[in-house]
Amino acid sequence: MCEANAYLRKDGREELFLEMVDKVVPHEEGLMLEDIFGRRKIVKARIAELALVDHKIVLEKE
Amino acid sequence: MCEANAYLRKDGREELFLEMVDKVVPHEEGLMLEDIFGRRKIVKARIAELALVDHKIVLEKE
Repeated sequence: MCEANAYLRKDGREELFLEMVDKVVPHEEGLMLEDIFGRRKIVKARIAELALVDHKIVLEKE
Repeated sequence: MCEANAYLRKDGREELFLEMVDKVVPHEEGLMLEDIFGRRKIVKARIAELALVDHKIVLEKE
């Protein structure tokens, strides 16, 4: 499987926000993340960086 | 391997921009994409969407 873990960058630190993320799509309140089980989380943030071989998505608060 | 193909969205269509992308990081001119072989491309765009199980990154021109 080719999912990644999403981290939220805050004050220079990265906190795990959602594991095994499949989709990230724009949402009226920021971004909607969906994991491989279909669980969804919304966050007021943007995608800052990707490191897919390391299974990593870094989000930054808007 | 857990890379994805990056597509650039233009006028509602998606054009393949770079295959087998590992890293996407901010760059002074937009984004720097690096594939799993270390080849790099720079584009004035932002990350719009991800669909990782489909190995897909969608970029949008800024």
